Amino acid sequence: MENFQFNNPTDIRFGKGHIEPELHDAVAQFGNNVLFVYGGHSIKKSGLYDQVKNLLKDLNIVELGGVAANPKIESVREGQKLAKDNNVDVILAVGGGSVIDASKVISSAKFYDGDPWDLVVNENGADSHKIDEVPIVDILTLSATGTEMNRNAVISNMEINEKIGTTVPNTPAVSFLDPSLTETVPARQTAAGSIDIMSHLTEQYFDCAENNDVSKGLIEGIMQAVIKWAPIAIKDPTNYDARANLMWASTMALNSIVNVSNINEWTVHPLEHELSAYYDITHGIGLGILTPRWMNKVIEDKTTLPLFARLARNVWHLSGDDDLELAKAAIQKTSDWNKSLGAEMTLPEVGIKDETNFEAMAKSAVKEGSLDTDAYIKLTVEDAVEIYRASLK
Amino acid sequence: MENFQFNNPTDIRFGKGHIEPELHDAVAQFGNNVLFVYGGHSIKKSGLYDQVKNLLKDLNIVELGGVAANPKIESVREGQKLAKDNNVDVILAVGGGSVIDASKVISSAKFYDGDPWDLVVNENGADSHKIDEVPIVDILTLSATGTEMNRNAVISNMEINEKIGTTVPNTPAVSFLDPSLTETVPARQTAAGSIDIMSHLTEQYFDCAENNDVSKGLIEGIMQAVIKWAPIAIKDPTNYDARANLMWASTMALNSIVNVSNINEWTVHPLEHELSAYYDITHGIGLGILTPRWMNKVIEDKTTLPLFARLARNVWHLSGDDDLELAKAAIQKTSDWNKSLGAEMTLPEVGIKDETNFEAMAKSAVKEGSLDTDAYIKLTVEDAVEIYRASLK
Repeated sequence: MENFQFNNPTDIRFGKGHIEPELHDAVAQFGNNVLFVYGGHSIKKSGLYDQVKNLLKDLNIVELGGVAANPKIESVREGQKLAKDNNVDVILAVGGGSVIDASKVISSAKFYDGDPWDLVVNENGADSHKIDEVPIVDILTLSATGTEMNRNAVISNMEINEKIGTTVPNTPAVSFLDPSLTETVPARQTAAGSIDIMSHLTEQYFDCAENNDVSKGLIEGIMQAVIKWAPIAIKDPTNYDARANLMWASTMALNSIVNVSNINEWTVHPLEHELSAYYDITHGIGLGILTPRWMNKVIEDKTTLPLFARLARNVWHLSGDDDLELAKAAIQKTSDWNKSLGAEMTLPEVGIKDETNFEAMAKSAVKEGSLDTDAYIKLTVEDAVEIYRASLK
Repeated sequence: MENFQFNNPTDIRFGKGHIEPELHDAVAQFGNNVLFVYGGHSIKKSGLYDQVKNLLKDLNIVELGGVAANPKIESVREGQKLAKDNNVDVILAVGGGSVIDASKVISSAKFYDGDPWDLVVNENGADSHKIDEVPIVDILTLSATGTEMNRNAVISNMEINEKIGTTVPNTPAVSFLDPSLTETVPARQTAAGSIDIMSHLTEQYFDCAENNDVSKGLIEGIMQAVIKWAPIAIKDPTNYDARANLMWASTMALNSIVNVSNINEWTVHPLEHELSAYYDITHGIGLGILTPRWMNKVIEDKTTLPLFARLARNVWHLSGDDDLELAKAAIQKTSDWNKSLGAEMTLPEVGIKDETNFEAMAKSAVKEGSLDTDAYIKLTVEDAVEIYRASLK
């Protein structure tokens, strides 16, 4: 087992009935000047916007609405100006991962005089970890990214065509996770979110660190909850327990508790980022297409087979003595489960008909993801092309 | 799934090699006046005492040594006086659960003018949650209680024959968990500690809250790690990975992450407390004797059988269609595992030959543990006597 440091102080308020009695004090403990960040119309339509405004009516609220999916640096710049001009004490982020991610960078940008893009890329002497920051309180409305309990943020800068993952000094101070707020999430988005959660878990499960059994066991446990409840949430969108298990699974999958002792970097996410960048397909759907092909590519390596067989036994409850057969059956189960959620399972189904861009995508994925040096099983550009190609049929 | 709040800000430094470079700053961040709390001679013998003194030689250190197992209120009183007289800024606790538990109460007692026993029992207007406190940094030397990452402390007051569990406002600020420090723990204590970890997990697994699958999965994952590594640690005490998995399992088992949505209270711990109180047997050994008997007592309740069968399938990897047969096989596996660690499996083996005190013990356990109202399966005094009686053979 490898050495590690773990520290995650986010105060989680999970379930129905926390927002009404607790939101005001959770925000006001940090001061009276609040930057209220949100996305589109959905929180106005659902009544959440009015509820929040009403609960905080004695505080000074400035608003930053319209934060889009794949949050843009322009929103962060706008937030920086509002935070400075109004000397905000606390940011209230209400929405999905994009709203919270943008808020995380605004949090330090209030105390930075340059362009906040510097904070994202750690350039021009900007290091958000050495800059003061405004605490964040959030109300999550989508189960997927885990940003509500981690230090990650992804910000896009369309002028220079970059989408960069960055880390911030602190996790959100208080996160309100009310699963009933996700009951209106459409089936396709629920499927994509659930596949994303499974992919986060899979990326962390397949790691080279040895004898890391507590972490492996935790991941297996969360996987089984996702496998069980995602199809139920899709069939029965207002099933509270389904939404609750998915929401808590998404948080636990990416709050750093399940990968404390891991050593290698992720593989399928870098491969998928190219699909989304070139063809603008839904991230979770892309992960669902690529994951079984990546698994097929790496199962026969003698170092991976025992772990694939373990996944088969402990997560998919398969039995047998032949590890390779077990591994193949686990891949089939993964694929069948994705399909059962209504997700497309080949590239042509999402409009990618030929391999025109595969070489360029593979080069970029290998470079950005350090797949040839830091992955679980190292991949060359040719390996990556093969995985894309296998996804065509 | 039930509503919950979760917040655990302890900064964990896990593994070899954290103490030397990090201990000084972890302590000194809170100030220069340090109360160094420890137990007996073992940290002097192992060299840890000298290492700590040397690393902190530029700080003002006052010492409170000799904190005994089942820490006494006298140690806390002594610590309170030292903390006040020397205006300590931070407590460094080096040892097992007892040393850290005593430190937790001293932490608030510095700011309380009355007897610290008031803080333990929340009497005479004393409420540690409303009193300021000194941060705690600890170095753990025994895997068992989880106190290094929770808000619990157990303090004994021998004058009035009470041993009380209490909660404190905060978890330790920084916990150094170096598994190699536990390599000298004797086999019997390793067995007792491992059974204690399994019991913590079992008590939280058998809970009435429904559809709590993330938590159930996390518990199953940690259980499998303990089942695998405890026998290895006993056979090969310096096996680092065995010590590491047990140490991280013990922390994760009781840092509140696996029972976030639970609703009922524990059963086997209150039953065992009476055994230890009446006969002074080792806590973990007592848990190992009682657990299978408690399981046998409650498996045939129709509400419990599916969960016992799930334990059989997911943790012990048993298969079959008859839930009752599976449940019985899981109980046998539990019993066999305890025995394989060298633990005594009947009361006569630990010197308890007859049922003289069973009625009194059962009455006290039912009362103290609210077993007739708040347990997973409610137990009467007669039920409790039956469990003790079944443990005689």
